[in-house]
Amino acid sequence: MKKLQEILKKIRPVDKKSFERTQMRLDNLTKPVGSLGRLEELSKIVVAITGKKGPELRNKVVFVFAGDHGVTEEGVSAYPKEVTAQMVYNFIRGGAAINVLSRHIGAEVVVADLGIAEELKIKNEKLKIKKINYGTKNFTRGPAMTEEEAIKSIEAGIEIFEEEFSRRRIDIVATGDMGIGNTTSSSAITSVVTDASVESVTGRGTGIDNNKFQRKIEIIKKAISVNSPDSKNAIDVLSKLGGFEIGGLVGVILAGASKKVPVVIDGFISGASALIAVLLNPSVKDYLIASHVSEEPGHKIQLEYLGLKPVLNLNMRLGEGTGAVLAMNIIEASCRILNEMATFSSAKVSKSFSD
Amino acid sequence: MKKLQEILKKIRPVDKKSFERTQMRLDNLTKPVGSLGRLEELSKIVVAITGKKGPELRNKVVFVFAGDHGVTEEGVSAYPKEVTAQMVYNFIRGGAAINVLSRHIGAEVVVADLGIAEELKIKNEKLKIKKINYGTKNFTRGPAMTEEEAIKSIEAGIEIFEEEFSRRRIDIVATGDMGIGNTTSSSAITSVVTDASVESVTGRGTGIDNNKFQRKIEIIKKAISVNSPDSKNAIDVLSKLGGFEIGGLVGVILAGASKKVPVVIDGFISGASALIAVLLNPSVKDYLIASHVSEEPGHKIQLEYLGLKPVLNLNMRLGEGTGAVLAMNIIEASCRILNEMATFSSAKVSKSFSD
Repeated sequence: MKKLQEILKKIRPVDKKSFERTQMRLDNLTKPVGSLGRLEELSKIVVAITGKKGPELRNKVVFVFAGDHGVTEEGVSAYPKEVTAQMVYNFIRGGAAINVLSRHIGAEVVVADLGIAEELKIKNEKLKIKKINYGTKNFTRGPAMTEEEAIKSIEAGIEIFEEEFSRRRIDIVATGDMGIGNTTSSSAITSVVTDASVESVTGRGTGIDNNKFQRKIEIIKKAISVNSPDSKNAIDVLSKLGGFEIGGLVGVILAGASKKVPVVIDGFISGASALIAVLLNPSVKDYLIASHVSEEPGHKIQLEYLGLKPVLNLNMRLGEGTGAVLAMNIIEASCRILNEMATFSSAKVSKSFSD
Repeated sequence: MKKLQEILKKIRPVDKKSFERTQMRLDNLTKPVGSLGRLEELSKIVVAITGKKGPELRNKVVFVFAGDHGVTEEGVSAYPKEVTAQMVYNFIRGGAAINVLSRHIGAEVVVADLGIAEELKIKNEKLKIKKINYGTKNFTRGPAMTEEEAIKSIEAGIEIFEEEFSRRRIDIVATGDMGIGNTTSSSAITSVVTDASVESVTGRGTGIDNNKFQRKIEIIKKAISVNSPDSKNAIDVLSKLGGFEIGGLVGVILAGASKKVPVVIDGFISGASALIAVLLNPSVKDYLIASHVSEEPGHKIQLEYLGLKPVLNLNMRLGEGTGAVLAMNIIEASCRILNEMATFSSAKVSKSFSD
């Protein structure tokens, strides 16, 4: 609890006055004013977050946290829960989508077991073991985890971020998840925090049929009614409806914000973590960049609630941080524009008819 | 004319039956079916275009063609026409947005003078001189160029592509433009080819005020009425309303399609070239990938007409190929997914509950 309280105190609102100064610099570059659209916006956000005039996003890290969900015993997913661990092995061997896309854009993948139901049979420097428990409990019968576990999961995320941050500078961080059943948990969290109906925030996850989809909605409603979480109390919501990987990502988001590192939020699961993090400290919002719009219907509702405009819309719904790393590359491009483009005067280009 | 006729004969429709085969391969990769959305779509398109099962997009080239427009004497732009040449110097020195973004994604920039109004005072291997004339004529008083010049500009684009293609393989090509006044020309072309009203396809280009904007619309209407181009005759439209860089890019598009190279179309100017290219041979459409949606209102109309769905929407309106290179990077990612991801069986991941 102490670690969490300390981090929360360190997070300060971003100095938005810098936006205007950065725009003036952008307007001196050899291009029509405003013509790079969202790239200009993104570079201003990164300058404001980092406090650096010419931020370079060299060290890009995506944290992929895994955890299992007791609610899978209700049959809410298209895949058996063993897939959570199987996919972690895949991450370590470099064969998953997040590995391919991270190699492509030059990001490092850090994988952690926050609460997989089984013991992983592998040791690897790329894999952190911070198991809070062997999966959450089935939240249709009571809280998914204890309050203590909820706090421990967040603090584990903070620790993992800080370990990696001390190994090398982290210039930009992305969140990623793996956990069969975690769209069910994220829908429940999203409905409670944003006050949207369960129907409006529930989707087909990895791809379930109509029967399972109807059942998923009923399960989520039951979980909320059984647990009656306090929508203003982040730890209460996380412990009753969350997952260990969702808690861990809350920690990454908080730690990133406390170190003035831009935090690129992936899709629906990461969005649930962002809702919890912002509930803990509203200034966190200033450090978030929404990477893409997931096909999960609840994701748009999260983004609206958080007031975030996604960079990409590629109809993706994979998780793992895949949308986030693609967006990181565009965000890096926006900073290179700011740092590397010639000005009208240095390039001797007329800025207007009077030049 | 012979070179153009030969290229047109070489362009064949793409084998779309391969889409299903590629989808089957995608469905065996360790991710929920369809969960990579547009990335899956893009990889299928590249496989179909190239005819390669595992296309690798190593050599990425963006052709940035420059030309001047006689219509600038009517005062349709926010910048003096000297900026066309000034920006070409900027391209060669590496200080423009297209240089920064191309370095970022690992693409090469090839710049060519197709018809700048002045003689460039620079020699550089990165700069090709294929000047058709010293700017087009003011098309409110007659054709912008002769039919012979229109054909020459297309053939110059084909030559430049083929020179570069023979220097090294080109795996994917992007189109880019520079030419003060060229949104005026592109609006005229778009209105005639798509039969949309001049008002609906005219925007503020580099950023003109209301008075100039109204004047721009009148100028375009006058150009169309003075020249009465035949909307079904590509060379007639290009010669009466075009620009030399627009013609050159038609050549790049045709040459790319003839060599089975995916052609990534930038924004509004490149879109005008695509309209002309498709008019010359409808099969060209199969080789085009729309990179982004420009803020120029006519661009959406071009994309609808061509039946293309853009990869990005970043509110950009710079030209130079800036949107196209950003999209090239996403397209490359889509191919890496296809080539590098583990399958369910190789990674021992359960594909369903029965596994």
